[in-house]
Amino acid sequence: MTNGGKPVSGEDSLIARYFKPLATDPGAFGLVDDAAILKSSGEDIVVTTDALVEGVHYLADDPSDTIARKALRVNLSDLAAKGASPAGFVLTLALRGADDGWLRPFAEALGEDAKSFGCPLLGGDTVSTPGPQMISITAFGRVPTGRMVGRTGARPGDRIMVTGTIGDAALGLDILKGGAVAKALTSDPTAMDMLIGRYRVPQPRNALAQAVRQYASAAMDVSDGLAGDLAKLCAASRVCAEIDAPSVPLSAPATGLVARGAVGIETLLAGGDDYEILCAIPEANSDDVIRAGRAAGVTITAIGTVAAGDGVPRFLDGEGRELRLKRLSYSHF
Amino acid sequence: MTNGGKPVSGEDSLIARYFKPLATDPGAFGLVDDAAILKSSGEDIVVTTDALVEGVHYLADDPSDTIARKALRVNLSDLAAKGASPAGFVLTLALRGADDGWLRPFAEALGEDAKSFGCPLLGGDTVSTPGPQMISITAFGRVPTGRMVGRTGARPGDRIMVTGTIGDAALGLDILKGGAVAKALTSDPTAMDMLIGRYRVPQPRNALAQAVRQYASAAMDVSDGLAGDLAKLCAASRVCAEIDAPSVPLSAPATGLVARGAVGIETLLAGGDDYEILCAIPEANSDDVIRAGRAAGVTITAIGTVAAGDGVPRFLDGEGRELRLKRLSYSHF
Repeated sequence: MTNGGKPVSGEDSLIARYFKPLATDPGAFGLVDDAAILKSSGEDIVVTTDALVEGVHYLADDPSDTIARKALRVNLSDLAAKGASPAGFVLTLALRGADDGWLRPFAEALGEDAKSFGCPLLGGDTVSTPGPQMISITAFGRVPTGRMVGRTGARPGDRIMVTGTIGDAALGLDILKGGAVAKALTSDPTAMDMLIGRYRVPQPRNALAQAVRQYASAAMDVSDGLAGDLAKLCAASRVCAEIDAPSVPLSAPATGLVARGAVGIETLLAGGDDYEILCAIPEANSDDVIRAGRAAGVTITAIGTVAAGDGVPRFLDGEGRELRLKRLSYSHF
Repeated sequence: MTNGGKPVSGEDSLIARYFKPLATDPGAFGLVDDAAILKSSGEDIVVTTDALVEGVHYLADDPSDTIARKALRVNLSDLAAKGASPAGFVLTLALRGADDGWLRPFAEALGEDAKSFGCPLLGGDTVSTPGPQMISITAFGRVPTGRMVGRTGARPGDRIMVTGTIGDAALGLDILKGGAVAKALTSDPTAMDMLIGRYRVPQPRNALAQAVRQYASAAMDVSDGLAGDLAKLCAASRVCAEIDAPSVPLSAPATGLVARGAVGIETLLAGGDDYEILCAIPEANSDDVIRAGRAAGVTITAIGTVAAGDGVPRFLDGEGRELRLKRLSYSHF
């Protein structure tokens, strides 16, 4: 992503028009170079990368401002779960063409989120593609040396906790695809809008990064589905877990849909796109982390306990019977 | 790019099979997390990102081992031109499927290059796409604080220099597309192989990073074409340049093709994919940098001089007449 003062190609003029206004950080050199500088004062740099493919991670007719926000926020969500403060990002944009009606809202929304989350655009690459558009972001965060929260530290006895509510984004996607949820909610457009919003624009929990760093023994964000992501966390920590399914926090529309039998709990537990933080918290810290959540305006809910052993996590219903989940999460392959 | 010890999805098993062997750096956590750590001891981190799209930056039937090398090397080339030492990279891979015949050579070649250039895989994201495959790499380098070589420092009187030879990759691409160059070289398969190799597997000049940092007032790598990239460097530095076209270093096959009139010099000057370093060197340092190149086994050639003013760089022929270049470089839009 380069612009040497005066555009010498269509790519340069595209960058100058849409993205240069976002390059406010001195390390971005006004996008005049094809490299950026990330300053460091010796702390660890946390690096995460997440890509969105049109038709796979977002729908072709999703508004481009929401696509931009989602592309950045899925990465911000990773930083939050690692206990890191946002430091900046680079953007790879594969476009079929330079459409102002798509690019202008995309760049403006990206700039707004970059500003409000304190994560400035540092650089990137803009390329053409004959196929689906794709947005790949690599984001950087800072943590004190050795303090990134990994996936391997969960210990038997730790409480399993999640932020926010689970499964809303999967319901929103189902609505956008005209599925069963759309039919069940025909008379409740407010609920439909809320669920669609949860799919299109995640709310990364960066306000909790410090609490995660302070209290969690292991953490990750829920992107592919709570059940599958918990299985990954447990496998990395070489532990198992027992989850009380009725404790999994649901939004009011999700609760209503489950109560009416319009969707099964599996849809929510394996749905993906939640971008909430899943973490293991030592028993002694569980009140502290809930209090820290309250101070940050984010509900944190205990949903189960880490157990010894290495099986797949067990989800129990209200009577203590194990739920048989046919699938745990979304998989690309 | 995550693998929690035991695969819980196709994506995880793909990563475990092909990419985990590459994650030798402690900051990669064996790809068990979805974030990585880049250690820093307070130096500046140089960040660069370059993406390759199938059918745009490489041909669908290029061997996957060469695609992997090119994807990493185009980023290594940026680091070299900025005077930075490689520190690591993250990989975003958008695949149509998990084809062992494509992925195994891809991952093996990527691992070989990562090792030989000292640039370890730290993490990434693997996603599915229904469209052209895409490889996006964000690479990191280290420079002493404030010492990244930018594009803005070229001063009137500086010598313009380039490494290696210019235009070979454009000729190689023409051969692969069955163009005029293929016909002109029918009887010289060795030359064809060399030119194709220059297109498919660039030779980034990382051995020269320290010399660039020590001697260059401005530098960039030549990716979109010498003429256009020089125009960008000049614009960023608010200077002009005069280039002696016959001084531009050409390989033996390129020299022969130009001498026979099989290709015009413009094809070489605007061709792109060279991944050589273009730099401005103060007169007093020009012998030093050539010597440093010789020590590193890389030819560095003076091709012109930075001039005051802000016009597009002028390319002069052997009689001092200005060449009129119809295009300066490759543009995506």
